[in-house]
Amino acid sequence: MSNSRTNYSAIPDDLEGDLQKQVPIYRKKLNIIVGASIIGITGAIIVASTIFLGKTVEPEPKKNVIMMISDGFGPASETFARQYYTWLGERDVKTMLPLDEIHVGHSRTQSSSSLVTDSAAGATAFSCAQKSYNGAIGVDPQENPCGTVLESAKIHKDMLTGLVVTSRITHATPAAFSAHVRWRDSENEIAEQQIGHNPLGRTVDLMFGGGVCEFLSNATEGSCRADSRDIFAEAEDQFGWQVIHGQGSRQKFDSIEQDVELPLMALFANDHMDYELDRKPAEQPALHEMVSKALSILKTKSKKQDTGFFLMIEGSRIDMAAHTNDPAAHVHDILEYQQTVALVKKFVEENPNTVVISTSDHETGGFTAGRQLGDQYPEYLWYPEVISRVRNSSESLAEAWSASLLSETATDNFLTQDLIKSGLGIKDVTGEELQRVKDWKPTANCTTIDLSYIFADMVSRRALIGWTTHGHTAVDVNLYAKGDGTEALRGSHENTEIGDFIVDYLGLDINDITEKLAKDL
Amino acid sequence: MSNSRTNYSAIPDDLEGDLQKQVPIYRKKLNIIVGASIIGITGAIIVASTIFLGKTVEPEPKKNVIMMISDGFGPASETFARQYYTWLGERDVKTMLPLDEIHVGHSRTQSSSSLVTDSAAGATAFSCAQKSYNGAIGVDPQENPCGTVLESAKIHKDMLTGLVVTSRITHATPAAFSAHVRWRDSENEIAEQQIGHNPLGRTVDLMFGGGVCEFLSNATEGSCRADSRDIFAEAEDQFGWQVIHGQGSRQKFDSIEQDVELPLMALFANDHMDYELDRKPAEQPALHEMVSKALSILKTKSKKQDTGFFLMIEGSRIDMAAHTNDPAAHVHDILEYQQTVALVKKFVEENPNTVVISTSDHETGGFTAGRQLGDQYPEYLWYPEVISRVRNSSESLAEAWSASLLSETATDNFLTQDLIKSGLGIKDVTGEELQRVKDWKPTANCTTIDLSYIFADMVSRRALIGWTTHGHTAVDVNLYAKGDGTEALRGSHENTEIGDFIVDYLGLDINDITEKLAKDL
Repeated sequence: MSNSRTNYSAIPDDLEGDLQKQVPIYRKKLNIIVGASIIGITGAIIVASTIFLGKTVEPEPKKNVIMMISDGFGPASETFARQYYTWLGERDVKTMLPLDEIHVGHSRTQSSSSLVTDSAAGATAFSCAQKSYNGAIGVDPQENPCGTVLESAKIHKDMLTGLVVTSRITHATPAAFSAHVRWRDSENEIAEQQIGHNPLGRTVDLMFGGGVCEFLSNATEGSCRADSRDIFAEAEDQFGWQVIHGQGSRQKFDSIEQDVELPLMALFANDHMDYELDRKPAEQPALHEMVSKALSILKTKSKKQDTGFFLMIEGSRIDMAAHTNDPAAHVHDILEYQQTVALVKKFVEENPNTVVISTSDHETGGFTAGRQLGDQYPEYLWYPEVISRVRNSSESLAEAWSASLLSETATDNFLTQDLIKSGLGIKDVTGEELQRVKDWKPTANCTTIDLSYIFADMVSRRALIGWTTHGHTAVDVNLYAKGDGTEALRGSHENTEIGDFIVDYLGLDINDITEKLAKDL
Repeated sequence: MSNSRTNYSAIPDDLEGDLQKQVPIYRKKLNIIVGASIIGITGAIIVASTIFLGKTVEPEPKKNVIMMISDGFGPASETFARQYYTWLGERDVKTMLPLDEIHVGHSRTQSSSSLVTDSAAGATAFSCAQKSYNGAIGVDPQENPCGTVLESAKIHKDMLTGLVVTSRITHATPAAFSAHVRWRDSENEIAEQQIGHNPLGRTVDLMFGGGVCEFLSNATEGSCRADSRDIFAEAEDQFGWQVIHGQGSRQKFDSIEQDVELPLMALFANDHMDYELDRKPAEQPALHEMVSKALSILKTKSKKQDTGFFLMIEGSRIDMAAHTNDPAAHVHDILEYQQTVALVKKFVEENPNTVVISTSDHETGGFTAGRQLGDQYPEYLWYPEVISRVRNSSESLAEAWSASLLSETATDNFLTQDLIKSGLGIKDVTGEELQRVKDWKPTANCTTIDLSYIFADMVSRRALIGWTTHGHTAVDVNLYAKGDGTEALRGSHENTEIGDFIVDYLGLDINDITEKLAKDL
């Protein structure tokens, strides 16, 4: 079936282009002047600290931490993506993905409340370096706020901080680094805290992702706020944010210069950003483009103020595709994440005192490459060619069918030709499968998720991809790292030890932040 | 439910006892005398080699390799076993299993014929350091014999070699180190090759496991040979094997001394050995007992002849429990394997120039801890207490029910009380479940495997353990290693690179063996 293989270039052999253009050479002249005055101030602070502590403190080199989280990405998904990528490009069997090359161990993921974590407790384990309950956003098992590595980096080290995700920016993973709420669904409040309505004040300098709706007054169309507050306006007026969203945001994003004023927020979708498989490049940047831009800005600006930076990157929707049990959307978001990893690794190589850590919060879907259909003993194989024919996520196809039903334009031809044949790449749909779709009716809450399950299942069965749940499973997730000092991450680790590593590497004091948060509540 | 937790001691905190007793202190006097003469002979060989090769060869320290294979054990099974063990003993959340402590990376498992390997191709990748097709036993993709690390260790290095497994000794994994056949089912021929009917002559010194039937003449009850050859007799008469099998073999095993004459074969079951969950200690030793004995013998005997040893250990039935989708049999065989790992790690610590590598050939079952039942969105959890109540493997319960049907002694009480309540620990069996069992009828080929699926499924559903297949899946498997030099195994590796590592570590020449095998065919 080699004819059906497209020239897939998710992970270019040579990534030189992107990064070189956007992270230009250190501009010596300007930085020497700015740098000198900042060194002066920093020096004064160090002297003060020295006197206060009564001991000598040597100035440390400025360090950067890039923490990457592939949400809902278990070990089998890495195998799946590698085998798919290798098959698609007719590559050598020994082909490795960018993550494979920096594989160092695994992370054990259970939360304080369950053997199977959710993303909130998973991210809190990284950000606060402690286990908490499923649903906890930057709070401990007693629901008290716990200081995060991002907050300590900002408060204690004056570092620049960034969050780049493909979900709503208020979703569990970015939230757990930048907010403290008892339950993950309090996204309205998370948005408020992220812009600076926080006992610590503003601690985030840069946010790229989706989730406009959480910032819009409920008087505005598309808002998902319960109140009439305009959080974008509050961000601009009270905390000095530059905000990009809505019409033309992609173009505005492209024109952002590396020495842009911070804080800066660019949100490209009302809800989550699109799956990579569905993404329209004229409307939304890819994850690797957002990360390339973020690194360019953070490098430039942090050098100017003679500090390092902390950047959290999430491949957020790897997880959501797995919740839908959609293998095609899953693999395309994974390969986009891998392309981002390639770019970040290059940045680490070119910038001393920078480390990247990549891991997952948990596995999603009980994904397996290989599956038994029916009673017959299975052959040992799965079919990548089935995946390669899919052109849209099952989520988007479900929304399209639902919309056609609501607008009374639904036809058999639209379903079989446009959605199933072109969208899913399935030419042998059965009468029973068609009937399942036709039996589906839009409901009052407008959710199409159960319909997307039907479409996704049609692909998974043909590809012999198995799933055991629409939720999460317990499996340890792979741990990847690169940069001096990351030898400490080799082997088997609790997820909280990744938080510990960042604390140690940057010399942070999250307990002090926890105390500050308790005082100010 | 802490009352239901038994004082499980699969992995004793202190393993001192076992190993210390069976691997006594190096007996200086005897060995100095024997050692001296062997050094003389070895010296002469080295001189001869030096002249022949025309270069200086330094005598190397004698090295030992212990290659452990956990068949059908994927990453989720390690998590499952750790969480179960931790829950059962009310241990700290940071508890690690013996394998976790030596986690170094993962092994990529696909074969030359499929994205999903079988055990034959998987073991051949380790033994011959090359990919081959599913079903291949020590042969390359063109079906030509390929030299194995065990054979080169024997032929080129005069090392002692051993195979310790819980399956038939002729099963795919041990076979791929010690035989060359085109298809894994040729176990009659594998038995012949293993005893010494091999172009290379006898290359195995010690074999512990199951599989008596492959060695018995078809005139003997229980034989699974097609011919009337008595392979045990041939082993004794033509190749000098000491053979232990049949009645009293456990007692004979216990009385084996560390300086026993080799070659030695002890087989404890006609077919595979029992699952650890079913094992009767008076009849069969546990894996860790066989390994303790094997290490004691191989250490003593190899020191006497001033060589090292190569020992392959397989936790064979971890895989078979996963094929049945039986989580309880699976976890007990895993914990027995972990106990063996603890013992082997101690041996490595106490014996310089010894390395242990532990990995799997592939994942089996598409196992997940966490599972969705029905349409309802799942909670994130699974129930270890369900597993803890199981007292027998589903395989053994299926055989018991089948036997009661054939002997017309089957009663409802036997099924519900003895098999389901006592055996599976299930007190809330449903009418539908009972009916599934009652609908099952013994078939002409006497297989009870489909009945065992029914029993196993009753446990998995209650524990929220998921499975996607009775076959294999593609996921990369964890790689574990300990000992000087094993740093080379860190990160992501092809399964063949584990064979490469053994070749490099021991200075083997498997290509020369391949040539010898080709000449002699």
